[in-house]
Amino acid sequence: MTTTTARPAARPAPSGAAKDQPTDRVDVAALENLLLGQYAQLRREARAVTADPDFQKIEGMPAAEHRERVLHQLRRLEAEHDVLRSFPARHGGADDHGGSLARFEELVAGDPSLQIKAGVQWGLFASAILHLGTEYHHETFLPGAMHLQVPGAFAMTETGHGSDVASIGTTAEYDAEAQEFVIHTPFRGAWKDYLGNAAQHGTAAVVFAQLVTAAPGGPKVNHGVHAFYTPIRDPQTHEFLPGIAGEDDGVKGGLNGIDNGRLHFDRVRVPRTNLLNRYGDVAPDGTYSSPIASPGRRFFTMLGTLVQGRVSLDGAAVNASKIALAIAVTYGNQRRQFAGGGSDEVTLLDYGQHRRRLLPLVAEAYAATFAHEELLAAFDDVFSGRGDTPEAREDLETLAAALKPTSTWGALRTIQTAREACGGQGFLAENRLTGLRADLDVYVTFEGDNTVLYQLVAKRLLGDYAKSLTALQSDRGDMARFVAERVADAALHRTPLVRAVQALGDLGDARRSVGRLRDEETQRDLLTDRVETMVAQVAQALAPARTMSPEKAAALFDTHQHDLIEAAAAHAERVQWEAFTRALAGVEDPATRQVLTWVRDLFGLSLVERNLAWYLINGRLSAGRARTVTSYIDRLLVRLRPHAQDLVDAFGYRQEHLRAPISSGAEHERQEQARAHYRAQRASGAAPIPEKHVRG
Amino acid sequence: MTTTTARPAARPAPSGAAKDQPTDRVDVAALENLLLGQYAQLRREARAVTADPDFQKIEGMPAAEHRERVLHQLRRLEAEHDVLRSFPARHGGADDHGGSLARFEELVAGDPSLQIKAGVQWGLFASAILHLGTEYHHETFLPGAMHLQVPGAFAMTETGHGSDVASIGTTAEYDAEAQEFVIHTPFRGAWKDYLGNAAQHGTAAVVFAQLVTAAPGGPKVNHGVHAFYTPIRDPQTHEFLPGIAGEDDGVKGGLNGIDNGRLHFDRVRVPRTNLLNRYGDVAPDGTYSSPIASPGRRFFTMLGTLVQGRVSLDGAAVNASKIALAIAVTYGNQRRQFAGGGSDEVTLLDYGQHRRRLLPLVAEAYAATFAHEELLAAFDDVFSGRGDTPEAREDLETLAAALKPTSTWGALRTIQTAREACGGQGFLAENRLTGLRADLDVYVTFEGDNTVLYQLVAKRLLGDYAKSLTALQSDRGDMARFVAERVADAALHRTPLVRAVQALGDLGDARRSVGRLRDEETQRDLLTDRVETMVAQVAQALAPARTMSPEKAAALFDTHQHDLIEAAAAHAERVQWEAFTRALAGVEDPATRQVLTWVRDLFGLSLVERNLAWYLINGRLSAGRARTVTSYIDRLLVRLRPHAQDLVDAFGYRQEHLRAPISSGAEHERQEQARAHYRAQRASGAAPIPEKHVRG
Repeated sequence: MTTTTARPAARPAPSGAAKDQPTDRVDVAALENLLLGQYAQLRREARAVTADPDFQKIEGMPAAEHRERVLHQLRRLEAEHDVLRSFPARHGGADDHGGSLARFEELVAGDPSLQIKAGVQWGLFASAILHLGTEYHHETFLPGAMHLQVPGAFAMTETGHGSDVASIGTTAEYDAEAQEFVIHTPFRGAWKDYLGNAAQHGTAAVVFAQLVTAAPGGPKVNHGVHAFYTPIRDPQTHEFLPGIAGEDDGVKGGLNGIDNGRLHFDRVRVPRTNLLNRYGDVAPDGTYSSPIASPGRRFFTMLGTLVQGRVSLDGAAVNASKIALAIAVTYGNQRRQFAGGGSDEVTLLDYGQHRRRLLPLVAEAYAATFAHEELLAAFDDVFSGRGDTPEAREDLETLAAALKPTSTWGALRTIQTAREACGGQGFLAENRLTGLRADLDVYVTFEGDNTVLYQLVAKRLLGDYAKSLTALQSDRGDMARFVAERVADAALHRTPLVRAVQALGDLGDARRSVGRLRDEETQRDLLTDRVETMVAQVAQALAPARTMSPEKAAALFDTHQHDLIEAAAAHAERVQWEAFTRALAGVEDPATRQVLTWVRDLFGLSLVERNLAWYLINGRLSAGRARTVTSYIDRLLVRLRPHAQDLVDAFGYRQEHLRAPISSGAEHERQEQARAHYRAQRASGAAPIPEKHVRG
Repeated sequence: MTTTTARPAARPAPSGAAKDQPTDRVDVAALENLLLGQYAQLRREARAVTADPDFQKIEGMPAAEHRERVLHQLRRLEAEHDVLRSFPARHGGADDHGGSLARFEELVAGDPSLQIKAGVQWGLFASAILHLGTEYHHETFLPGAMHLQVPGAFAMTETGHGSDVASIGTTAEYDAEAQEFVIHTPFRGAWKDYLGNAAQHGTAAVVFAQLVTAAPGGPKVNHGVHAFYTPIRDPQTHEFLPGIAGEDDGVKGGLNGIDNGRLHFDRVRVPRTNLLNRYGDVAPDGTYSSPIASPGRRFFTMLGTLVQGRVSLDGAAVNASKIALAIAVTYGNQRRQFAGGGSDEVTLLDYGQHRRRLLPLVAEAYAATFAHEELLAAFDDVFSGRGDTPEAREDLETLAAALKPTSTWGALRTIQTAREACGGQGFLAENRLTGLRADLDVYVTFEGDNTVLYQLVAKRLLGDYAKSLTALQSDRGDMARFVAERVADAALHRTPLVRAVQALGDLGDARRSVGRLRDEETQRDLLTDRVETMVAQVAQALAPARTMSPEKAAALFDTHQHDLIEAAAAHAERVQWEAFTRALAGVEDPATRQVLTWVRDLFGLSLVERNLAWYLINGRLSAGRARTVTSYIDRLLVRLRPHAQDLVDAFGYRQEHLRAPISSGAEHERQEQARAHYRAQRASGAAPIPEKHVRG
């Protein structure tokens, strides 16, 4: 267990003039518990694991060594730690889906490569056996995958097809005579690519391929993408098995502790029973059957198991952001540069621009943390079976598709801003930030490219919108009219929200309007109205597509792709804001509640400020009101400044997690030493006179 | 020389329907010449150097090897290539300051570590001897520095002080008896830090220290920061000389071909004559003298030589952006994913969002290139002595301080967007983007932190503004009134620009207003008016500071720090736009001129769109007009799409510069192969029937 404090030995009091000193400070321990959430104990245990140097990344380690180190870490995790929670109790697991992910997310503090390689082994490879396979596979293949006797690859992506999995080229054609599937790579673009464990460690793979079979006397039919358990290397010699070959993907921009590689198959035969047949099976005679009649729905059901990857990336990205902010805020609270109006140099965080760079990101990390907790709860509900309905699954997938892009892009922005806020020191690998950023980079394009995921969300929003219209029993003409009216209405500022805001504008009292901006309902209305209006506007714009040729409809859709993505992002941010607001409602301690309300307001108003042009163009805010958004943010930043250290301390990371010399307190010690030197020099009378004083 | 073509063997024609096919395409060769600019021949020669594999970065190479490789490259450059152009002819150079920088900037295509290590050796270490030293130093120390017998460090930055050089702690106290300076590090924060060549290769350093001396009978006076030529290692044994010690800065987020390190001095003695004494000298008896009476002006004059570093970072950042865009646009023009309305999959660049991500960055790279050419010309004017006036120096320093942050931050945005646009492939080191981004990262905080540089620019803008008021011979009361009126005027939309835009708004004709938005004068007015108004507003807000206590004045200034930085950024962007517009005026070929005008418009309107809220709040654009900004950008993106490949081909980088398999044409070949496979399968009748067709 890690019990040392995050605070450097000689932690300076929050800086700023005495008048800024808060009388009430947040209850850091209680806030830490709130942030640790429903799986606090499991998170603490996982953080204790990452406090062990053997589980920590060594920056600059050559890739070959790094890969072996991470494999070793995986083996230690399996042998000593509680990493199989998500598996069924009958296989030695704990049927704890949410808790399992919470633990894995924390591994990012040790080494993101460890988090991702664990995800490949247990979250993808073993999970595919569990979720796509049936009893036979659970008995035969799952123990080896769970206990790492069989490191495995999840062979879905191909060089030619990443996001569009339905179009992969690998085929698995059934040979009824031999009762075997023949797995084959027909061209270079169909090579499996980017697979963790494929370059070196994997001895088996779950291979996704187009299942082709013929019922007796029938034609050959392609039943779409299915998964096949496929041994790839001799476990003893580690040589590829006959018909299988591959390549190493080589050095990457980060995550070099993972041996990503390529695989291709030259008519490789596996037994019929190696088909992971939960959602589609082939009888010995070649007859295909599936519990899901629609090939499209079947495909998306199989892909649905991928959601846990997205959930855990969301959590890991938020954790990485918090580590980066804890480093940068702690340093910014100690580092001084340039003399201010007084005699001493000014702490970086006492510069307006520095606060503006970092504090809104702290607010964002809070929002993302609370939103992730809700995602984790939804995930656990579905995967535990407690709330496993098609609607709940769809909601879960939409929520994951909304939050994963938001938090992973947020992490890149946050870590980079933190790195720049630490100047050149932030660029030294020893201070962690460049390594975290490099490793997190690919989070925005893997396990669902962020742009593609936002489009999924947007389509769901459009679908819900259409359904709400259908519920009104409108025919198509009515719908167009309804949409048109709604948009016109919005444009004419006649929605309730807009009425409220306008009324305020009419009062013309800046102080009262600030009062309203920090009003929870006003923020909610502003954020909600934006999503709803954007969706309605796009729906209206796309309405003519129904009667168009596919080409023209595609072109029309393309024209609005950017708007769709913006709408999805707005939806995701609103979800984060709502989660933050719900979490806030549970805070009892008045000081903590006050400070956290400011943080929530900073988050909400930063979202409004970022999209200020939209609110102005669409008549939601007057120019005068828009100005107050920025000035209220500026006031919040000043108010939050004395609490900045508390807010990042509450993330609960200790020095063994931060591991950045610049946030260890060394900077503060150096400054004390320098001050003592100059003080002694002045006292001794040996200080030279500055030239300007001589001449002056 | 590199004469191979940048186009892959089987380069596909620009995609899109035939109607989108431009009848007139740009003259790529002529455009390449335009972009290569005034030093085209030197740039071509430098690009030929980087086409040699021996000058190219090997991704994943361990730092220790990488450092030796880059030192070897430096030695080859010195021995075989024309790298001493900036030095005086009498020392074997060519007195060609602009041309020399143009060459060095191109080295970024080989390895940014090479560019920066060359910058340390010749641009900082040798240049300091040249520019801060006098005849004795030129004779004694310059040859070794120029010809690399003496690799050297530029020992300015300290752990405790980066941006605030004036406050460094290292002292050089004159000992008149011994006629020596005693260089001393009084505390840990005064260690020299982050010095290239300090960890391993350097045998000497130019050490910046507070010069302390006493005239005979006088008191000890600190004359501020001066530079001292200081041997640090035994050239034979490479051991530190007595009294000197240091540390390796270790692995960094990038640029690991450079041996950054720390140095500290324990009363190290150097001869009096090792003071680089152009701007300040100490007579044998200890008497200090300087041609510049004001210590402040003297300090900034000495630091003025740093401007060449900023100029070359601006150029190198623009080059790195162009390489990244050439890779991503070429790939996006070939890679297909998801079927569109037609039968074939859609090229990435035919997705609206993909165009929106990449093409405005192409426009930005054009603008940054043209602006850099003007910066280079200004630099050459001053450093050649042709136009070396205090005003010209000040203008040069302001221009460099404006463009370096803009282009280096632009490069990080551009390279990252390019990387994400290439999906997972963009994350493979072999495709260059992650390595370029990692190496360029520190460009935003070194050689002047971007935030600090923007503040310098803002102060100059405020100063100019104040001068323009002084020129009106206003007394202080008048000035306040003038500012107040000007701002009120602006707020009431009574400036000429605003009148024009309003009049347009009154017409209410969207098509005409788009016509006006692409009008050069409208863009200029919008961009110029924003800078002027922001400066006037801040000036007004800061006016009360004159009568405040230093503490209160500093607090007031701090409140507006963010606005100041925004104003500086707006100024820099306007400078880029003006440079683009001037370059455009020289283009003769009608098709090239037309396309380039669209690119310029895209750049200008993207700047307006990015700051749309400002234009709305300040009454410069009506809501309706603001909408047309975005819709005109959308139209420009569609128009420019067929020219995208030509526009990046004109950057003039060949495959040996891009060195990214994804932009080599391999993707196109893979697709042809896949198509041929499916075609043959269909022709043979062996293609399986899709399940949905069976059931349908």
